[in-house]
Amino acid sequence: MKSHSVFCVSDHTGVTVEAVAKSVLAQFPALEFSLIALPFIDSPEKARAAAARIAATPGALVFSTLTDPALRAALRDSRASLFDVFDLVAPAVEAALGLAATPSGGRTHGMANDYESRMDAVNFSLALDDGLQPQRLDQADLILVGVSRVGKTPSALYLALQYGLRVANYPLTPDDLEQDSLPGVLLAHLPRLRALTLSAERLAAIRQVRYPDSRYASLRQCRDELAAAKRLFGQHGLPVLDTTRMSVEEIAARLRYS
Amino acid sequence: MKSHSVFCVSDHTGVTVEAVAKSVLAQFPALEFSLIALPFIDSPEKARAAAARIAATPGALVFSTLTDPALRAALRDSRASLFDVFDLVAPAVEAALGLAATPSGGRTHGMANDYESRMDAVNFSLALDDGLQPQRLDQADLILVGVSRVGKTPSALYLALQYGLRVANYPLTPDDLEQDSLPGVLLAHLPRLRALTLSAERLAAIRQVRYPDSRYASLRQCRDELAAAKRLFGQHGLPVLDTTRMSVEEIAARLRYS
Repeated sequence: MKSHSVFCVSDHTGVTVEAVAKSVLAQFPALEFSLIALPFIDSPEKARAAAARIAATPGALVFSTLTDPALRAALRDSRASLFDVFDLVAPAVEAALGLAATPSGGRTHGMANDYESRMDAVNFSLALDDGLQPQRLDQADLILVGVSRVGKTPSALYLALQYGLRVANYPLTPDDLEQDSLPGVLLAHLPRLRALTLSAERLAAIRQVRYPDSRYASLRQCRDELAAAKRLFGQHGLPVLDTTRMSVEEIAARLRYS
Repeated sequence: MKSHSVFCVSDHTGVTVEAVAKSVLAQFPALEFSLIALPFIDSPEKARAAAARIAATPGALVFSTLTDPALRAALRDSRASLFDVFDLVAPAVEAALGLAATPSGGRTHGMANDYESRMDAVNFSLALDDGLQPQRLDQADLILVGVSRVGKTPSALYLALQYGLRVANYPLTPDDLEQDSLPGVLLAHLPRLRALTLSAERLAAIRQVRYPDSRYASLRQCRDELAAAKRLFGQHGLPVLDTTRMSVEEIAARLRYS
C-alpha cells in the first residue's frame, strides 16, 4: 500500500501537532501514513528549509501549529496540502469570544516555575520509589501500591513529569501479602493510596523478562500474589486500577482524576 | 478580570485536547481562562453528564476531541460554544485525500508493544541513572552527561517514557572535572553522549534547595563546575544543550533530534 508522507510542523516540541495528526489520521484506517516530525521551526530560515523539504515530497500532507504569520506564509509556499490547526480552530474561537486572536509564540510550556515543581516531583517520586523513606509518605500527593512489576514506578514518574504530582510507590512483598491488612506504615495514608493491578498473564510475561523461568515469574505465583493483593485492597476499600490494556498516559490520567 | 470556563472533553486521556486548547487560548492574552478537564468521556451516559455540567456553566467554551458521533451529538446539546477539533480539521483532510473519515475510538495510544518498549526504556534509564552500571552503556540510545543537578535524570526519564529511548546518565564529579578528558568509561561512547548545561544562577538555586548554604550550592562552585564541564565537552566536541529556559518536554524533544 502506498504510504502518505505526513509532516508535523511546530515552532516548539511538536507534541501537540503530532497528537492531532495521529488522532485525525486514525480515522482513515484504509490508508498508511508515515509521520515526519519537524519541531522547533522558529525562524524564517527554518520555515523556508521545511517548505523546501515538503515541496520535494510529492503528495505530502502537512499538519502545523505554527502561530507566527511569517512562518506560516513560508510554509504555504510548499504548495502541499496544509492543515494549520490554528487556522482551522482559531476563527471559531474568535467568533465565540468576539475578539481577534493575537499570534504569539504559542509557548504554553517553558515556564520555569512549572519546570521546577515538576522536577521537585520527579525527585520526590524517585526518593520514595519502591517503599523507600516511608517516613515521608505524608508529603505525597498519591501513593501507588501493588505487587512487584505491576507498573508502579513508571506510573509514578509519569505523574510527576507530566502533572507535577509527588507520587510515592510502595511494593507489596510476599510477606505483606500474607497479612490481614496492608503494611502498618500505609494505614495513616489510606485516602491517598491507589492500587494497581494487571492480568496474571501480563504480569508473568513482564516478570519472565527479568527472571526467566523463576518461581517469581510463574503464572501460579503471579495469580496468587494478585489475588492476595486484591483481598487486601478490598479490605481497605482502595480504588483499584487494572492497567492490563493501558498506556502509561492513560494510567497517569486515570490516577490523576481518581 | 472575568475568567472564562473552558472544558476540555476527550474520550481518552485529554492530553491532546488540553494542548490544543492551551495553544489556541494563549493567543487571547487579554482574557483569563480556567480549564476544566473532562477525560474518558467514552459512553453516552458520560457524554450527557458532561453536557449537563457544561450547560450549567454560563458562557462556557468547550474544546473536544470526541470522535463517536453519538457522543458528539450529546455534547452539542449543552448549547455551549463548542470547538470540536475533528469537526474543524477532518473536513480539510477529507478534501485533500478525497476520502471520508471513519469515526473510530480515536485511540492512538494504548498499544501493548509500545507500552512494553517504553517500560523497558524506563527500567533501563533507572538502572543506568547517575553513572550506575557503566558496563551497560553500550546498550544506551543516548547518554546524558553533566554536573550534579543539571537535570540529567528527569530528562532521561522523560525521553524513556515519551519516546521509548534507553537513556543513561552520567554525572561529572568535581574529581572528573579536574581531569584532562572525560571519564574513560565514556570515551568508547562519544557519538551517543549529549551534554547538558544550565546558567550558574539556576544551578545554584536548584542546589540551594537541596543543601542550603553549602559550598556545593554556592554560585562560585557552580560557575567553576560548569566552566570545567564546558571545557571537557569542547575537548570532545560534544553537542551541548543549555536547558536554562526549557521545559522538560522541550529538553527531551531537542535531545531526541540532536
